[in-house]
Amino acid sequence: MILILLFGRIHPLIWLISRKSANISIIKICRQNNFMATEKIVTGVISMQLWGGRFAKGTAELVRQINDSIGFDVRMWREDIDGSIAWAWGHIASGVLSSAEAEILVDGLHQVADEWENGTFELKAGDEDIHTANERRLTELVGAVGGKLHTGRSRNDQVATDFRLWCLRAVDMLEEELQVVMGTLVVSAETNHDTPLPGYTHMQHAQPITWGHWILSHFWPLQRDVQRLKNARAVADECPLGAGALAGTAFPVDRQFLAKKLGFSRITQNSLDAVSNRDFVVDLLYACTMIGIHLSRLAEQLIIFSSQEFGFVRVDDAYSTGSSLMPQKKNPDTLELTRGKAGRLVGLLVGLLVTLKGLPSSYDKDLQEDKEGIFNAFDTLMVV
Amino acid sequence: MILILLFGRIHPLIWLISRKSANISIIKICRQNNFMATEKIVTGVISMQLWGGRFAKGTAELVRQINDSIGFDVRMWREDIDGSIAWAWGHIASGVLSSAEAEILVDGLHQVADEWENGTFELKAGDEDIHTANERRLTELVGAVGGKLHTGRSRNDQVATDFRLWCLRAVDMLEEELQVVMGTLVVSAETNHDTPLPGYTHMQHAQPITWGHWILSHFWPLQRDVQRLKNARAVADECPLGAGALAGTAFPVDRQFLAKKLGFSRITQNSLDAVSNRDFVVDLLYACTMIGIHLSRLAEQLIIFSSQEFGFVRVDDAYSTGSSLMPQKKNPDTLELTRGKAGRLVGLLVGLLVTLKGLPSSYDKDLQEDKEGIFNAFDTLMVV
Amino acid sequence: MILILLFGRIHPLIWLISRKSANISIIKICRQNNFMATEKIVTGVISMQLWGGRFAKGTAELVRQINDSIGFDVRMWREDIDGSIAWAWGHIASGVLSSAEAEILVDGLHQVADEWENGTFELKAGDEDIHTANERRLTELVGAVGGKLHTGRSRNDQVATDFRLWCLRAVDMLEEELQVVMGTLVVSAETNHDTPLPGYTHMQHAQPITWGHWILSHFWPLQRDVQRLKNARAVADECPLGAGALAGTAFPVDRQFLAKKLGFSRITQNSLDAVSNRDFVVDLLYACTMIGIHLSRLAEQLIIFSSQEFGFVRVDDAYSTGSSLMPQKKNPDTLELTRGKAGRLVGLLVGLLVTLKGLPSSYDKDLQEDKEGIFNAFDTLMVV
Amino acid sequence: MILILLFGRIHPLIWLISRKSANISIIKICRQNNFMATEKIVTGVISMQLWGGRFAKGTAELVRQINDSIGFDVRMWREDIDGSIAWAWGHIASGVLSSAEAEILVDGLHQVADEWENGTFELKAGDEDIHTANERRLTELVGAVGGKLHTGRSRNDQVATDFRLWCLRAVDMLEEELQVVMGTLVVSAETNHDTPLPGYTHMQHAQPITWGHWILSHFWPLQRDVQRLKNARAVADECPLGAGALAGTAFPVDRQFLAKKLGFSRITQNSLDAVSNRDFVVDLLYACTMIGIHLSRLAEQLIIFSSQEFGFVRVDDAYSTGSSLMPQKKNPDTLELTRGKAGRLVGLLVGLLVTLKGLPSSYDKDLQEDKEGIFNAFDTLMVV
Repeated sequence: MILILLFGRIHPLIWLISRKSANISIIKICRQNNFMATEKIVTGVISMQLWGGRFAKGTAELVRQINDSIGFDVRMWREDIDGSIAWAWGHIASGVLSSAEAEILVDGLHQVADEWENGTFELKAGDEDIHTANERRLTELVGAVGGKLHTGRSRNDQVATDFRLWCLRAVDMLEEELQVVMGTLVVSAETNHDTPLPGYTHMQHAQPITWGHWILSHFWPLQRDVQRLKNARAVADECPLGAGALAGTAFPVDRQFLAKKLGFSRITQNSLDAVSNRDFVVDLLYACTMIGIHLSRLAEQLIIFSSQEFGFVRVDDAYSTGSSLMPQKKNPDTLELTRGKAGRLVGLLVGLLVTLKGLPSSYDKDLQEDKEGIFNAFDTLMVV
Repeated sequence: MILILLFGRIHPLIWLISRKSANISIIKICRQNNFMATEKIVTGVISMQLWGGRFAKGTAELVRQINDSIGFDVRMWREDIDGSIAWAWGHIASGVLSSAEAEILVDGLHQVADEWENGTFELKAGDEDIHTANERRLTELVGAVGGKLHTGRSRNDQVATDFRLWCLRAVDMLEEELQVVMGTLVVSAETNHDTPLPGYTHMQHAQPITWGHWILSHFWPLQRDVQRLKNARAVADECPLGAGALAGTAFPVDRQFLAKKLGFSRITQNSLDAVSNRDFVVDLLYACTMIGIHLSRLAEQLIIFSSQEFGFVRVDDAYSTGSSLMPQKKNPDTLELTRGKAGRLVGLLVGLLVTLKGLPSSYDKDLQEDKEGIFNAFDTLMVV
Repeated sequence: MILILLFGRIHPLIWLISRKSANISIIKICRQNNFMATEKIVTGVISMQLWGGRFAKGTAELVRQINDSIGFDVRMWREDIDGSIAWAWGHIASGVLSSAEAEILVDGLHQVADEWENGTFELKAGDEDIHTANERRLTELVGAVGGKLHTGRSRNDQVATDFRLWCLRAVDMLEEELQVVMGTLVVSAETNHDTPLPGYTHMQHAQPITWGHWILSHFWPLQRDVQRLKNARAVADECPLGAGALAGTAFPVDRQFLAKKLGFSRITQNSLDAVSNRDFVVDLLYACTMIGIHLSRLAEQLIIFSSQEFGFVRVDDAYSTGSSLMPQKKNPDTLELTRGKAGRLVGLLVGLLVTLKGLPSSYDKDLQEDKEGIFNAFDTLMVV
Repeated sequence: MILILLFGRIHPLIWLISRKSANISIIKICRQNNFMATEKIVTGVISMQLWGGRFAKGTAELVRQINDSIGFDVRMWREDIDGSIAWAWGHIASGVLSSAEAEILVDGLHQVADEWENGTFELKAGDEDIHTANERRLTELVGAVGGKLHTGRSRNDQVATDFRLWCLRAVDMLEEELQVVMGTLVVSAETNHDTPLPGYTHMQHAQPITWGHWILSHFWPLQRDVQRLKNARAVADECPLGAGALAGTAFPVDRQFLAKKLGFSRITQNSLDAVSNRDFVVDLLYACTMIGIHLSRLAEQLIIFSSQEFGFVRVDDAYSTGSSLMPQKKNPDTLELTRGKAGRLVGLLVGLLVTLKGLPSSYDKDLQEDKEGIFNAFDTLMVV
């Protein structure tokens, strides 16, 4: 055996891969931001629905169940409230709301946000998505004026806005995580920069290299992924609010003001594109997929290096498991799951590409498929 | 407009697509069988783990969280208990258990099953997967003899057995559902078999056909899918119990007896293959994907046929939704979601193919990725 | 090192993987059958086209270039001629052709086939696909009666028939190849059935096994693939001839007679489905993908086993390459390409799934995308 | 019918989609640059090979056939020669070549390039890839000094350099093409900016819009694709020359000089990553896939708009085809192929992602799979 990495030396490396302690604080942040999935989902009879009214027969229970997105879009509660606050302020200049009304609405929205944050928000039957849930609760809190908030807005531009805000926050968190992983690779490279290692091509000994040289060959792909995340961020960074259902809004809202208020760099240029565009999700999912593939390649090599035959790496007890039948074994499960989950990420990317292909350039319900994929990808990567 | 299908006539067609009433009874069956996801998931501190013992440091909390599969494999509680019952009976002949002991174990396992069925089973910290959960509870109920059940068995052959049993049941339910959809297509074809319809190639009028001719062109692909499901069933229908961790079991269990007891047609022939083989999942996922694509093609055409310009089809109120901004609209959301979800199915298939490629022929933790995909696919198709 | 497989012993194993000598005879058969790609492709000015006439402006050169499929469907020359021969015989009973005319046509078609076989067939400008090429040449040889052959037939049912015939032949050749590979695995298992080998889970030593046990764990997946090929065969084995463009044919052709003449077991039941159905290609591509994944898993393990650290396997000189910089090296390139090409197969499957999703149930030009994928997959697997 | 677009008005739109005249000049450029596939491929007996010598048995013919990449990498002849010219100049400073020798080599390389350009280059048996072909011919032309060119270089860094140069040129050509398409959309929007059009959501009339508004909703996605191409360009724009087989080169070559000479902005930072990195291909393939999906969405809507029921668009005779059975028909084949080919692009992306996942961070033969996919994607998009 050429190289034995003792516990103390390999620890930083493995540590970075599973990110125990860092993740715990991240999870805390996630909880606050409601980035992680919320489980409180009410199912029951519908009392009323936002578009209500017209239909003689009411919507069949099952259709409602399929259509409802509250089960997953509840993760965007904060973004939905942020969007509504900006919209309320914007409606002062458009003449829809008086300053006093806007203030009442914004205060109410802050109360709703507090309820989410404290875990006291109660979903009710009829809350078909996060938009109706928040608006229903707002109206309970502030009375009839709550109904004025939706003036000139559609759920089509509302969900586009919320989802972009969510992606912007997600991309920042992923980048931060990635930087920690990269930092650990650098530390490992520094600590072992002279440790000799066989260099392989075709899994055959080729030329001698060092551990530092090798481990940094996994740093640079991640460095490129940082740029991929930044590219995805730039695509998401456009404010679609004011695009209405598809053809804009009849009210003179100042879209630049809305964009600025929400932290977007610019506004979208075509309202049809604004409500149907999910490119920003695909770009983010693509960046996640590439990160997954790069971590998988690293994991694959570490698994081979940790075999008895290679013996270059010893996976820390904390990140491996044993076997009931074979107590002498130490299995690099964490690495294997990293490798396995890259497959899932490729699948999620493909799923969204397939769904998007062939859709016309305005809102269709197929787009509802956009969210679970990226939520799943985000959770997958954050855990990995 | 060439053809107006009034409510009474189109109803059977649309009805079949969303399958309201049928689905409700199916969901009831699913609940009983625990096919649908269970949400009661405990997270907490680990007290003990099946493979326990060896490690100085204990397993870090996060690693446990990544490794644990209890969150999704809980759906296989019934299959896990069925497998254990067969194993207990099998151990009489192998001499591991006396008849009395086996009876105690089987009685206990039935009690555990009752708890699952009644919703009184309580997951505890340390239940890392469904196998440990059931065994932990069994031992609580029957005492020390519970510990003898796992003799000569590994979680590797146990999960392979449970998963195959689950797939066999899933494939039967999917086939039954599909038959209902196909039946409704036939009814629609009979009811409107003379109604003229333009036949299209390249979306241009080509030759006149009839509604019956057209709707049955969507029947035959589903008929082929029934065969795909049967093919997937045949692949799953092999009993891997007795394969152990990878090299078989040291105890003289009668594998033919186990297979028969569990309803399998035959036993697996190679123990390494038995624990690493997930082909049966891929085959089932492939069948689901093809069903999804066929339903998507039908949905796509119905969406076009229901446009004002075509006007051949009117989607029943019960299966469409309206709009808050445009009260005159009726949106075929249900059909659009059917179309959109086919993309997800393709993605799930790809995800599993990618994960499997490159794995060696024995158990690796990557395989844990196999379940959520097919569970998701099953739920997706059952809803659609 | 636990195990050294000397040249003489490993040779059979590696031999089977690259299949030198077997392949050469296969390639010879392919040449005769024109299964492999033909390169003689003429590009030039259009003189006439089958559907000709109507358009004032003629078809723009580039559109023709995109539309033309002669570049790849030339591989189906034999199937196209077989289909035409059956059609000619069938037209005696339908009254379109006298016995004398049918004989003239069939003789002419045999002459065309001879030209293909001898490599003397010359493609001309205006041969937009294999159907027009063969018909053009036939008319040159037999005169005006050649024009009667296409009566009551469309290129839509013609290409469906040709393509199914091609797939039936391809599936038989693939199965034969696969049987040879499987036979070699069995030989290797017999020759080394007692040779000890570490059994791995998670790439860690688990329990001792033997080489025979291990190598046969790669036999069984291929055995399942044989069944997948058979399933794909059963789906392809339906005769669509007589479906016309989409709505059948006006002439009383005996479709059972046509099917029998061409070696199909049964006829298609719905003419719209008959011309738009490409499920049989997807099934075949799926079987190819699974074969690719299984060979890739075998290759991956052999690559690891052939590393200096493992040293279980020595790849025969004939199947590895060296390096200009490092003359001591032996690279298992063949195995690596096997592994790499499995990715291509997954991609080809996805490509076709994506294209098919969302197509209506009759002929659209998108379907032209169906052939290059499976041709590519077939070539890929035959080489591997 | 709400809107009839007469020939004169729709022409610009359709024109842009198939790009007849533009493409012809592009094809001419391609021919010069050898971007398009070259068909002159020699197969025959091997006489010698670059890494030659060591093996007792010679390489089996079939292995050679699988390993050889000359069939597709011949497209990079210009990039390979450019790389060699830079390498020759670089070796003056490193002391390997005298100025006179370098000049002889560069003159010889220019002669080889001329032969490629004039179509007089003859491939010979033993030319296993473009690198050996060019070097073999160079040595024929300049004699023994030709053998000094390869000093300190490996085919691993050579192919990485060639391929990056090819991608940089491809990305520029694709961007230019895309700009033409976008320009035509803008012209169509200007010409018809007031023409009313129904705005759809869920394929149902929603709010009235204009043709200009609608057509520009397909402009903005392409605008984002331009940025995706630029991002892919930035990733490719790093010079790997000097990375050697995997561990750098022993000769003091000035890598900054080489990068500048070849037009790269910067040099790669890690030699292992430099030879194994194919991220730049994936990024380009991803950009191509997104372009394909966006054009497919446009094509899909135009196909629906060109149906008799909608009748908004009439596809120009030059870009549609007729039918032998139904002379009244005009089929939008070109649009359908655009839609169908997007599926292929998704498949090519998946194929490469699957191949890359799980590879270690240095050169393995699997990487040879990288080229045909992107070549295919490039050809597909250039035609579309």
